Formats: sequence, structure tokens, C-alpha cells
Amino acid sequence: MSTNRQWVLSRRPNGAVTVDHFQQKESELAPLVDGQVLVRNRFLSFDPAMRGWITDRKSYLPPVEIGAVMRAGTAGEVVESKHPDFAAGDRVQGMGGWQEFAVIAPGRGMLSKIPDGITMEQSLSVFGITGLTAYVGMLDICQPTEGDVVLVSGAAGATGSVAGQIAKIKGASTVVGIAGGPDKCRWLTEHAHFDAAIDYKAQDVRTQVAQLCETGIDAFFDNVGGATLEAALGNLRRGARIALCGAISGYDVSSPPPGPRNLANLIVQRASMRGFIVLDHLDRATTAIAEMAQWVQAGDIAYRVDVQRGFANIPATFLRLFAGANFGKQLLQLED
Amino acid sequence: MSTNRQWVLSRRPNGAVTVDHFQQKESELAPLVDGQVLVRNRFLSFDPAMRGWITDRKSYLPPVEIGAVMRAGTAGEVVESKHPDFAAGDRVQGMGGWQEFAVIAPGRGMLSKIPDGITMEQSLSVFGITGLTAYVGMLDICQPTEGDVVLVSGAAGATGSVAGQIAKIKGASTVVGIAGGPDKCRWLTEHAHFDAAIDYKAQDVRTQVAQLCETGIDAFFDNVGGATLEAALGNLRRGARIALCGAISGYDVSSPPPGPRNLANLIVQRASMRGFIVLDHLDRATTAIAEMAQWVQAGDIAYRVDVQRGFANIPATFLRLFAGANFGKQLLQLED
Repeated sequence: MSTNRQWVLSRRPNGAVTVDHFQQKESELAPLVDGQVLVRNRFLSFDPAMRGWITDRKSYLPPVEIGAVMRAGTAGEVVESKHPDFAAGDRVQGMGGWQEFAVIAPGRGMLSKIPDGITMEQSLSVFGITGLTAYVGMLDICQPTEGDVVLVSGAAGATGSVAGQIAKIKGASTVVGIAGGPDKCRWLTEHAHFDAAIDYKAQDVRTQVAQLCETGIDAFFDNVGGATLEAALGNLRRGARIALCGAISGYDVSSPPPGPRNLANLIVQRASMRGFIVLDHLDRATTAIAEMAQWVQAGDIAYRVDVQRGFANIPATFLRLFAGANFGKQLLQLED
Repeated sequence: MSTNRQWVLSRRPNGAVTVDHFQQKESELAPLVDGQVLVRNRFLSFDPAMRGWITDRKSYLPPVEIGAVMRAGTAGEVVESKHPDFAAGDRVQGMGGWQEFAVIAPGRGMLSKIPDGITMEQSLSVFGITGLTAYVGMLDICQPTEGDVVLVSGAAGATGSVAGQIAKIKGASTVVGIAGGPDKCRWLTEHAHFDAAIDYKAQDVRTQVAQLCETGIDAFFDNVGGATLEAALGNLRRGARIALCGAISGYDVSSPPPGPRNLANLIVQRASMRGFIVLDHLDRATTAIAEMAQWVQAGDIAYRVDVQRGFANIPATFLRLFAGANFGKQLLQLED
């Protein structure tokens, strides 16, 4: 237990990230000092936003340094604690990174206990950051009301799928999801309460959006950007709200694709677009999780986790996000 | 007086509009029917948005039909009235179009008396639609507060110049304008209370924006779109507000230029972008004009009108907008 296996960032991608941008490393665990907690990571969380964390660009978090352990959300158990709020055996989530053990000083490191009745997988998905992201973006920015037509991109993902279902709970008449492949599309309409799904790998998104949202889009929850955003902008109803949650189409490329040519439709339709970062809203996590738990229990929110396994597979699991290979929230379970 | 000279739309531009897209016509004035007012147009108003009115595309107003008199804001005098609210001699503004005389049914035609103490030129500029546009966009969307850094594109134009000065009145510490040519830039800083100006014809906008707004842009009032918008998006401060008033860079071309590649900065900076159409806010004209009149009287708002002359020059005057040739609000005075 004194040896810790880690994956560090070995060089920065310029374009698509590969497993070669990371390197395995072993290091000795130093004894804890006061205020620190030693956590054994059980699950790692993977999000598209992590692609931005390894780019050397001013952003909402400083970039991960070369040679540093890759930053990531994690769930696990406390092994040893020199912090009054935590004790050995506590189930916790935090930013434990790509490693078997994490030494976290909770004051800075965002460590929190996982409430009873919530699994580690749930704490990293529907009742975690991605669930909160869906909750904040949909309720605060998209503001769906009775009868609205709501479009969601990245709809089979951890955030998109929950966002669409919240819109449905709030009375949207039509919730349309954009996802890749027939399995994801079927899951959206058969299990996740979406009214329709567009398979961007097989269908023309622009045409489908125009058909399925023929009276115009009242709210768009966007995880993708680029051409997907352009298709939505071409079909807005007056007063439409667009929540910019992510722009995965521009993350894993050396230079981002051109923006939508039809931004001026925001003027014609008196529409608005707002970007947000869930880290600004962590104070609402407790309220959000309580409300989401009721919706999940009532069967109004279905969610999926996609659990890969094994320390060796960590970088490869990250790449699944940019290939659209993940089906639901991407997690990885570390071996015992 | 029974003959009326008019300019009609003869064909639709596909790309840049030219004088050849319009044709002169003479028609006989029919006797007024009840509810109508006959107005002799004295001044015509020209706005970039009019370019959109001659494109056959769904927008906030139906396109001007081929063969119809070109739609335009006008100021003039009532010659004859069969409407109880208007009498011969009244000074009025409305949508009189490109013609010497306009027959307007005030219920539908947005005809209003020009208040005493306001000239016809003022009623079509600082105390008209363009002034109201600046007022609504800056106060409602940009929401400048003490110490803000505010950027305005199309800054020497009728709307941009007033928008920037309203920001200054509301306590913005730095108001930077983007305009074309040294004369306009000098006017902005020497007369229109701007702190700095960028000459997009001679300087690199991206570099200048980064330098002059080095702590980041809190609010951007955009009349241009395209590369100008991209430069602003690259320099946002957290929580920035962008008012999309116009996108002249995309108006007079066969296909609009690519959108900004860096829209995802709206996410990183938790920023918002909102389009608006002043016609939605006409009910605030009286309040706005009263407040603006105080600001003009106090010397806090300088404005310019660019008055061309002569019926024959109407289409050519319209083209001045897209060449950036107008300096201030573009008007045309019809001969007696």
C-alpha cells in the first residue's frame, strides 16, 4: 500500500489525444500530514471537458502540468484520515485523478462523503457532476415550460440524457435527442423518455432537426457545437434559449472547426445563448441531488453508466469519449 | 401633387446589392379614404437591417416584394388627413418608404408625431429607432456597470456611437470602439466620449482588442459579426454579456462568412449572447427619448447625421452603409 500506480500527462496533444500522451508511473506514498486524507480510488470518471484540461490554454482551471497525474473525478474509500471530517471507511468522491490512491486535502480538493443509498457509480453520474450539469443548464438556461420543443445534442451521454428528461418532466411537449448510432437512439426513445432521436452517424442532422422540430426549437442544450449548433440555430423559435454546456466537436482537433454561419438567427429570433461551468454551482448539489433522486425513483429519469475496467485501460477509456464509443456516463472501475 | 415618384425593388440581390436592384417609377396618388394620411416625405432613413428586408428569407418582417416601393423609415409633413389623430401640417415619422409621398394608415403603419423641439433629423437618429436600439441593447443586454470594459463594433454608426456613450454614462471605465478610418476613430475619442478606437481598415482588430481590453471585455455591443465577433470572443472576462444588434459583415454577401471558431469561450467565461430586434421595444420609445434628451442636453451624448440629398440618389445612399462610407446616421433629404 505504500506504492501508488499513476498515469501522468507525458506530452500535450496537438490535435487528437492518444494513449501515447500519457505515461505510467509508480511513486511511494508519503505519510499523511495534518489535514490530509488518503483515499483508495475505486471508480474514475471521464468527461469531455477533461480534454481542455490538457491543453495549454487559459481556461476555467489551470492546465494539467506535464509529468503531473491526470486530473479526474473519482469515487473511493478513505483508507486513512488526518482530517476531522473524514474517517477510514468513509465512501467519498473528489478529484482523485488517474491513480490508485489519492492524497487529498479536503479544503482545496473538493472531497465529499457519498450519501447513504447512493452507489459510487451514481455519485459519479446521475447524482454527480454530470447530473448537476444537466440540472443547472436545463433549469437555469433552457428554462423549459409546458409545450416547449427542446433539442439536446450528445443526448445519450451522461449529461444530455438527463437534461432531456428534465425538460420532459417540466412539461416540454417534444424532446428530440441527437446521438450516434441506432442503439443509443433506441435507448433514448424507449427508455429515456425522449420523443424522437436523430442518429447523426446515419442521418442528415439539419434535415432531421427541421422535420422533428418543425414549429421551431424553444430550447437547445448543446454538448457538441460546430455543425450541430448550426443546425439548431437554423430552426429556432422566437425567444429560444441555448445552453452551451460543451463543444466536443472542437475539443480533440488541432484547430476548432468554423463556427455556425447563421449566428445572426439569434437576432432574427431574439434568442439567447449562454455558456456555463458546473463548478460555479456546486453549492446547489445537495438540492439538485435530492430532487433528482425523486425523479429517478419515480421512473422519470433513466440513466446509463458505461463501466470499463482496469488500471491499464485508463487512457484508452478516455479516448472512448471522442470516438463517441461510450454509451452513457463513462466510468472505469479499478481492480482490487 | 397627384404624381408620386418612387423607387421600387426590381430584383433581389444575390450577393452585394447595387443601384440596379431598384427602379424608378411614377404613379398617381389616389384620393385618400377614411383612416388614411398623406405625408410628404422630407427625410429618408437608411439602416443596415434594410438589407435583410430585400432578401427572400423568413425574418422578423416579410420581405419587400418585387415591384413594391422599398420599405424605409421616413420623416415629413402631413399634407392631408382622413385620420382623427393627424392634421395637415403635422410633423410625423413613420415607415413612408422610398418615395416622395406616402399614404399611411396609422393603425398599421407606425406613424407618430415628432415632438416639439426635436428636428426631423433627430427623430430619425438619436431620438429615433437607432437611438432606441442603442438604448435597449446596451441597458437590457450589455448591462454596463461601474468599472466595466465595454467594446462596441460599428462604433461610429448611428447605433454604435450612442451605445458606447450610454455605457460611459453608466460608469464603464473603458469604452473601446471599432470603426473604419482615422476620421471616424478621431471623432469617437475626441467627441463621442470613447476611451479608445480601433481602425479596422488599418489595424489588426484581434491584436488591438487584446491590448486595449487587456483585462477582458465585460460587455460587447456588436453590429458586425464574423471576424469582429471572433476577436471579441477571444477576450471575454468572466460573465461577459454580448448584445447582438446586427451582423453587417454577413448582410451583403451571397453566403455569410463562417462564424467565430471560438464560441466555446462563452462556456469558459460563463458568458452570454443575446439577439434583439428594436421593434419589440417600441413601447419604451417615449421613456428612452426623454432620458436620451437629457443626456444629449448635458453633452454626454454626441451624435452625427450624414445627410445625402436628392431623390435620384436614394439607392446609392443605401449602398454607402455596406461600403462603410456613412459617418453617423445615414439620412437623405428629398428636394422640395
